[in-house]
Amino acid sequence: MNRMLNGMRVVEGSAFVAVPLAGMTLAQMGAEVIRFDRIEGGLDAGRWPLAPSGQSLFWAGLNKGKKSIAVDMRSPEGQALVTRIITASGKDAGMFLTNLRVRGWMDHETLSQHRRDLIMVTLMGDRQGRPQVDYTVNPALGIPDMTGPEGHDAPVAAALPAWDLIAGNMVVSSLLAAERHRLRHGEGQEVEIALKDVAAATIGHLGMIGDAVVNGPERTKAGNALYGAYGQDFICACGRRVMVIGLTGRQWAGLVKATGSGEAMEALARQSGRDLRDEGVRWDLRHEITAILRPWFAARRVEDFAEEFETRGLTWSVFRSVKQALREDPDLSEANPMFSMLDQPGLGRFPVPGHPGAFSARPRIRPEPAPALGQHTEEILGDVARLSDTEIAQLFDKGVVQSPRHAARSAA
Amino acid sequence: MNRMLNGMRVVEGSAFVAVPLAGMTLAQMGAEVIRFDRIEGGLDAGRWPLAPSGQSLFWAGLNKGKKSIAVDMRSPEGQALVTRIITASGKDAGMFLTNLRVRGWMDHETLSQHRRDLIMVTLMGDRQGRPQVDYTVNPALGIPDMTGPEGHDAPVAAALPAWDLIAGNMVVSSLLAAERHRLRHGEGQEVEIALKDVAAATIGHLGMIGDAVVNGPERTKAGNALYGAYGQDFICACGRRVMVIGLTGRQWAGLVKATGSGEAMEALARQSGRDLRDEGVRWDLRHEITAILRPWFAARRVEDFAEEFETRGLTWSVFRSVKQALREDPDLSEANPMFSMLDQPGLGRFPVPGHPGAFSARPRIRPEPAPALGQHTEEILGDVARLSDTEIAQLFDKGVVQSPRHAARSAA
Repeated sequence: MNRMLNGMRVVEGSAFVAVPLAGMTLAQMGAEVIRFDRIEGGLDAGRWPLAPSGQSLFWAGLNKGKKSIAVDMRSPEGQALVTRIITASGKDAGMFLTNLRVRGWMDHETLSQHRRDLIMVTLMGDRQGRPQVDYTVNPALGIPDMTGPEGHDAPVAAALPAWDLIAGNMVVSSLLAAERHRLRHGEGQEVEIALKDVAAATIGHLGMIGDAVVNGPERTKAGNALYGAYGQDFICACGRRVMVIGLTGRQWAGLVKATGSGEAMEALARQSGRDLRDEGVRWDLRHEITAILRPWFAARRVEDFAEEFETRGLTWSVFRSVKQALREDPDLSEANPMFSMLDQPGLGRFPVPGHPGAFSARPRIRPEPAPALGQHTEEILGDVARLSDTEIAQLFDKGVVQSPRHAARSAA
Repeated sequence: MNRMLNGMRVVEGSAFVAVPLAGMTLAQMGAEVIRFDRIEGGLDAGRWPLAPSGQSLFWAGLNKGKKSIAVDMRSPEGQALVTRIITASGKDAGMFLTNLRVRGWMDHETLSQHRRDLIMVTLMGDRQGRPQVDYTVNPALGIPDMTGPEGHDAPVAAALPAWDLIAGNMVVSSLLAAERHRLRHGEGQEVEIALKDVAAATIGHLGMIGDAVVNGPERTKAGNALYGAYGQDFICACGRRVMVIGLTGRQWAGLVKATGSGEAMEALARQSGRDLRDEGVRWDLRHEITAILRPWFAARRVEDFAEEFETRGLTWSVFRSVKQALREDPDLSEANPMFSMLDQPGLGRFPVPGHPGAFSARPRIRPEPAPALGQHTEEILGDVARLSDTEIAQLFDKGVVQSPRHAARSAA
């Protein structure tokens, strides 16, 4: 097969964003990813947004291209079966991702007795294993406190589960690093990552911890301004809002030139005695700069300056809702090779993304739909767990496993 | 050496968040990472936040544990030198990360003539190579439109450059996937990733694109509520704000029990004719639920219920600023093995994070400070570019390279 991670097999026992995203990212790079769930579906089976059918668009989005097996994990047979699938043989298998943190039969100590070189990546809430989600980690570490309109008194949480998304990608790189180690040293291992630690490390990396320790004032809300340099949103004559960036010297010079505001900026520099070529000065004087630029944007429709901004290579964008973006932006359509229009039963037809990376050594992998719950149960029991037809039939009869076909047959 | 990515050498030509974060993540897993910069420092050399000394806490945060070489890249000698460093021999070398996208001498086609199996990961703004930053990608794709207080009319941008952070982590996993491929097939490649594609793919994965296509109403701002289930912030009697989560059935039942609101919730269910065990119903009725819970929190200080919430395993958190978090939360101190207190010249003393992953096969790597600009120039010229002492002296004399020691000598 012609895929980047061809041959790799990863088993995933998961729910919600981070670990499902990790498994899907590997699947979209070409790995075989098996997600196991309870017979009734995982904790995220009904996560919003939903399609009009009631099926989860969220679940479908985060489990694309995986194989699904549905198992009764309360039963000893179910536990033995999941163990067998996680620890099945294969040079590039024996990799397990989870955020379920089941102690006993599904922990690393027990599983690695069945396969010594097992690689297991466990995502926890916090480092003590207490439950945390993106929505609790974020306020605990101060981001909502610095988000929102200037002067707004309440913290503003994000609509995007950024920590989950970062953690999920870190699960991917940790797994690949651990596999690299196994290839060289023949040694498996457990990698533990806490969602809260991902967030704590990241705010440290961005300098926010140092800032809070060595500087006096707390970083405050600054609306939609780009922190520490210049970047601001403006409402145009057409009613559309745009974001313009003057972070680097070149971006700043381009913005000043395109808006013909050179003289006014020089006057501001003289008046304030400060040099606007210094990004921190642009931050300090952002309100004055914005006051100069505001009438320029207020007097123009986006279409009046869009082409010139593009030609000059300015860094800028219009604001859009997701619906607007879908209507206006070809990057969210099949004009972008990352997207394929898929018709998904129970969900509808819309552009579905593959992996954002274009790997020159292999053709792009088209995105594949998410499986139905238990869709690959029989296949996995045969090909991975290597059970006989008789054994498989017994597991179905006992209700240890389920598949849509079998469910339909039982209901009939 | 006893490190996860031991032996790997990565060269980085970068600025700002994503690619520096990628290189640093690899360094914190044990790779040797060489960042090259202009003699005067990269575009991000003065990025905020700054320490009182004027040095960048941001730069120090995103370049920890790297080696730094300062080169005049306008000169042909400087370009030849950087080429030599990127394409230097070594089985686990020949890996290059960049977001600078310099056409000609520094593109993949040219560089790979010097090392056929070069792996190069390039992060672009958008897929056409136009400039985009987190602050423009985010409004273009609709996140600020769904962020902020309910009913607030303007879009609210995030204080966290989430797309940069996600893209940076994706650069890491793409590099590791490409190295895996090279180990198996002996083949290098270029991986191109656009920041905007990372964002577009992610909103697709989360179901937001499907939602916008198949459902009528646009997703609107919902303040600090957890989208699609129950999660809300409350102000307590002590003035502190808390976030409580009722996403899973267990979390919801725990929250209802801990707040003694079972009867009121049953009454709400009867009155509305809806089943609160359904997460979507909790979302639809979130205002009614919040009205029930609000007096409970308003009548209690955080200390009155914190212990019971912990004992019951509820998913919750207090809101904090970063300064508050540093004072109150041991997870941001050396009590957390991820953090080390470092004294950094020109910056100060504060807790500095290492990689969030705990890899059982290797001891945790303590974080190392960022280098001074050009700190490793001589070492890299000798050990990596394999130049003679005479050649190195000539490069310094001509001003093709710089180091802090040499700069001090020249100034003396």
